[in-house]
Amino acid sequence: MRRSFSFFERFSKAFQDYPSLSRIIVVSTISGGGLIAYSEANGTNGVVETGTRKKKVVLLGTGWAGTSFLKNLNNSQYEVQVISPRNYFAFTPLLPSVTCGTVEARSVVEPIRNIGRKKNVDTSYLEAECFKIDPANKKVICRSKQGVSNGKSEFSVDYDYLVIATGAQSNTFNIPGVEENCHFLKEVEDAQGIRKTVIDSFEKASLPELSDEERKRILHFVVVGGGPTGVEFAAELHDFVTEDLVTLYPKAKDLVRITLLEAADHILTMFDKRITEIAEEKFSRDGIDVKLGSMVTKVNEKDISAKTKGGEVSTIPYGMIVWSTGIGTRPVIKDFMKQIGQGNRRALATDEWLRVEGCDNIYALGDCATINQRKVMEDVSAIFTKADKDNSGTLTLKEFQEAMDDICVRYPQVELYLKSKRMRGIADLLKEAEADDGSKKNIELKIEEFKSALSQVDSQVKFLPATAQVAAQQGTYLAKCFDRMEECEKNPEGPIRMRGEGRHRFRPFRYRHLGSFAPLGGEQTAAELPGDWVSIGHSSQWLWYSVYASKQVSWRTRVLVVSDWMRRFIFGRDSSSI
Amino acid sequence: MRRSFSFFERFSKAFQDYPSLSRIIVVSTISGGGLIAYSEANGTNGVVETGTRKKKVVLLGTGWAGTSFLKNLNNSQYEVQVISPRNYFAFTPLLPSVTCGTVEARSVVEPIRNIGRKKNVDTSYLEAECFKIDPANKKVICRSKQGVSNGKSEFSVDYDYLVIATGAQSNTFNIPGVEENCHFLKEVEDAQGIRKTVIDSFEKASLPELSDEERKRILHFVVVGGGPTGVEFAAELHDFVTEDLVTLYPKAKDLVRITLLEAADHILTMFDKRITEIAEEKFSRDGIDVKLGSMVTKVNEKDISAKTKGGEVSTIPYGMIVWSTGIGTRPVIKDFMKQIGQGNRRALATDEWLRVEGCDNIYALGDCATINQRKVMEDVSAIFTKADKDNSGTLTLKEFQEAMDDICVRYPQVELYLKSKRMRGIADLLKEAEADDGSKKNIELKIEEFKSALSQVDSQVKFLPATAQVAAQQGTYLAKCFDRMEECEKNPEGPIRMRGEGRHRFRPFRYRHLGSFAPLGGEQTAAELPGDWVSIGHSSQWLWYSVYASKQVSWRTRVLVVSDWMRRFIFGRDSSSI
Repeated sequence: MRRSFSFFERFSKAFQDYPSLSRIIVVSTISGGGLIAYSEANGTNGVVETGTRKKKVVLLGTGWAGTSFLKNLNNSQYEVQVISPRNYFAFTPLLPSVTCGTVEARSVVEPIRNIGRKKNVDTSYLEAECFKIDPANKKVICRSKQGVSNGKSEFSVDYDYLVIATGAQSNTFNIPGVEENCHFLKEVEDAQGIRKTVIDSFEKASLPELSDEERKRILHFVVVGGGPTGVEFAAELHDFVTEDLVTLYPKAKDLVRITLLEAADHILTMFDKRITEIAEEKFSRDGIDVKLGSMVTKVNEKDISAKTKGGEVSTIPYGMIVWSTGIGTRPVIKDFMKQIGQGNRRALATDEWLRVEGCDNIYALGDCATINQRKVMEDVSAIFTKADKDNSGTLTLKEFQEAMDDICVRYPQVELYLKSKRMRGIADLLKEAEADDGSKKNIELKIEEFKSALSQVDSQVKFLPATAQVAAQQGTYLAKCFDRMEECEKNPEGPIRMRGEGRHRFRPFRYRHLGSFAPLGGEQTAAELPGDWVSIGHSSQWLWYSVYASKQVSWRTRVLVVSDWMRRFIFGRDSSSI
Repeated sequence: MRRSFSFFERFSKAFQDYPSLSRIIVVSTISGGGLIAYSEANGTNGVVETGTRKKKVVLLGTGWAGTSFLKNLNNSQYEVQVISPRNYFAFTPLLPSVTCGTVEARSVVEPIRNIGRKKNVDTSYLEAECFKIDPANKKVICRSKQGVSNGKSEFSVDYDYLVIATGAQSNTFNIPGVEENCHFLKEVEDAQGIRKTVIDSFEKASLPELSDEERKRILHFVVVGGGPTGVEFAAELHDFVTEDLVTLYPKAKDLVRITLLEAADHILTMFDKRITEIAEEKFSRDGIDVKLGSMVTKVNEKDISAKTKGGEVSTIPYGMIVWSTGIGTRPVIKDFMKQIGQGNRRALATDEWLRVEGCDNIYALGDCATINQRKVMEDVSAIFTKADKDNSGTLTLKEFQEAMDDICVRYPQVELYLKSKRMRGIADLLKEAEADDGSKKNIELKIEEFKSALSQVDSQVKFLPATAQVAAQQGTYLAKCFDRMEECEKNPEGPIRMRGEGRHRFRPFRYRHLGSFAPLGGEQTAAELPGDWVSIGHSSQWLWYSVYASKQVSWRTRVLVVSDWMRRFIFGRDSSSI
């Protein structure tokens, strides 16, 4: 009867708590997604081929940035060659759920060939890893992970345009023992490996002839890094253990322990303070041991050492570590950066149009790149000259206002600065600079006054976080640029070139933050949405389900993920070690 | 639109062809399964504990035999210790479907702890492999696959009763290169490995700078063994390639080839001839190259050599080989057989009550054992003496008839012999023996005449096939014996002991063949059911779906498998290499 009971318990519980909401959300999620999928599929109307040779776009990577680029590119004048060691796109925000079997690995992936073949753009795919970029000869050199092909282990691919979207790798900060003893959580394989290791730990702790101390060690799960991934994994693991595993491994109940090590003073520091507080409180209620201000110094086979801010080093035995502290640079990117004189950076520097600095026809987006936002102060003389249309040597308010639109598009920090100071326009900005003789009607600015008015705005230059959201938006943006490359060459629509003639072809990339989620376990999710809206609890959980279901790449993954959630409600998670 | 089309195509095709049948079968399968599951769960009513020490049953293995034993054991006087390197039961008949993603690996497994904990029998589980059986000291010695535990890598477990159900392993027949270069298809991991290799082969063949010859080699899939597993895998692979992969890898279409090598003169020799014919015909229509009478002699890294019956050796290049030719003995069983003087056998010999010959309190069932059916001719004098109740030295027809029930239970070959000769009873049997003086009314047999009458019956001794069906029935049988061990000690219900006093405690194990299925791909399944009923086509396919869905171990696996089938109808199979 137990099984039947738990079926009805879970099922009725879910539907009693949210009588209609749940069904509406799930149904509207799926059907809404369907409409999106339908309209997307219809959007690819055939374009008549011109006689000219197609431009060859080589795309490295099938993560968020690359896939989003591929999905949105819609111009039959290109021929796209995708190269990546993974022949699928993975919906990475659900990876922590995969580690505990809440969602199946296969439900969060979509073959890249499926994504590619729906386009009217000629797309082909190679399962290989690019290990060298050769910008001088416009080619990339690749290696198949399947070893030697036809006697050669390498091959090269030429490009007209290169789009680099290889992502990043886990960062061990060169701490000894991390590489050898820790699990990472970047790839689908990582999540599968963690799942197997969790089950294996419970089986191992059930073997005879072990001391209680040893059993405790085996069942001590350590998460390093209090970012969204680490926190979500800790929460998922806690749910898996308390909801599913303790009934199957009753003796393990009092032995299992989860510890989260974070070097900073709080977890989830990128979120609103209220979320951080609630998350820390919930974890302490759940019995997850959050150790703040703990810098890991060394990892041995069976214990991990961490140093507090006071300098005190403590060593704790562990059974499994999941390392989720931040991202590092992939070797191919490191090598490429050296070639183009960016050797000291962490990621490829691009301009605001995602073009790699110092290269022709090479674009980079996603976690492997950062946008080097142009500073206003670098260009301030040029801006002044452009704005001073009558070459009077001074800027009238009217001249300044006319130039302002282009300035704000080119230098988004200006707008951010105005917003941060609660100013409504340039008049306010100038007023601040000339605070001494207050209410002058006919402002006329000399270059020095202009400089002083803008001197603070560069403090508002924002670096974009390394998130899926940024990568996806960059992919979409770049695809739209590629689509209209010819058109915008003739009719540029970007801002005025401050240091050159005419206008930029495109408006620069601008990131729109749509909010973030941090699932905290036990059907609780913290949501931070635009407009300072913070929400925590069951409703955010359903919002999370609904947003994540609708964001899935295809009809298939959408249905699969939703049905995985259903399965979990009904049957719980599976504990077979496969 | 393609994706949506294929959705509706597949869906409507399935339901147009079998408008109501399909739904009825699927629904009744699930709900019927539910009733079974419900009644099973209710069957375990609490038994009051007696003060005596519980008998410790050690069960080795969690395959069909072991799991069926565990599920059916229902006597709280036992304490069961399950030991197996796999902490789950796998529904192996669906493994060929797992190789191509028709069904997910996780859908065909159920954690053994789940199966065990529903019982009123004290059950615990150890994830370890038994590598030595020590019958003298009544213990087994085990090793955890997770390496050293607490400084020791081994531990031993005592038993009162030992149930050996470790199954068999793939048989390479010591052909060089098989172990290193071939995939087997016995475990869930094997199926997952094959799936990954198939996708990898298609990716590999898509790489540049390969000759067409090399691409052809990579896409040449060889199946060795024309039994049900090999045939089903070949059929699944053909479906996967033609239904799903050719749209994603259009260039591979003309290069891919499937070859099936079978040493005998036909495939599916264990089935009815009509099935063999239809299967061979369907394969030749599908373009699967069936090479009969081909004995594999050697496997190299890139080619496989086979010898025809004429002695001609041919060597063909291949990309992947699936080896599915038969079963061999596991090392632990080999070692145990040596200890108990059965060193020359292929599997453990048991008597008809599944007791290992020459051992006390050790039982063996499933693929690791064979039943050594007692021959009538070995016991013929004893039988005669037992039957001759008045010690007259001759047997009257009445005496013979009275003994016949016990003889038929003890020696099932007698009944089979009568059936095979279309005889209705013993009178016919005796008539045959005494054909010379035909219609004698008062038959009185001397020992020589009795011997001559029975001389042919032992030719009907049947060896049971190494199938899931046999293993499962043996598990159920043995559990029932264990349940009523005490009861039947007092009131034995078996046949008369021919060479001893009194009766056997239990009736011997008797196998009831419930039919077999051989899926041939393209929604075609050959079914061979009792009563010479052979059926091939869509209806058998639905029967197969329905039987296999209802046979699943739990509600969970039942729903999962059915929903996997649904997914496949709607979305096709996934080609991500995870």
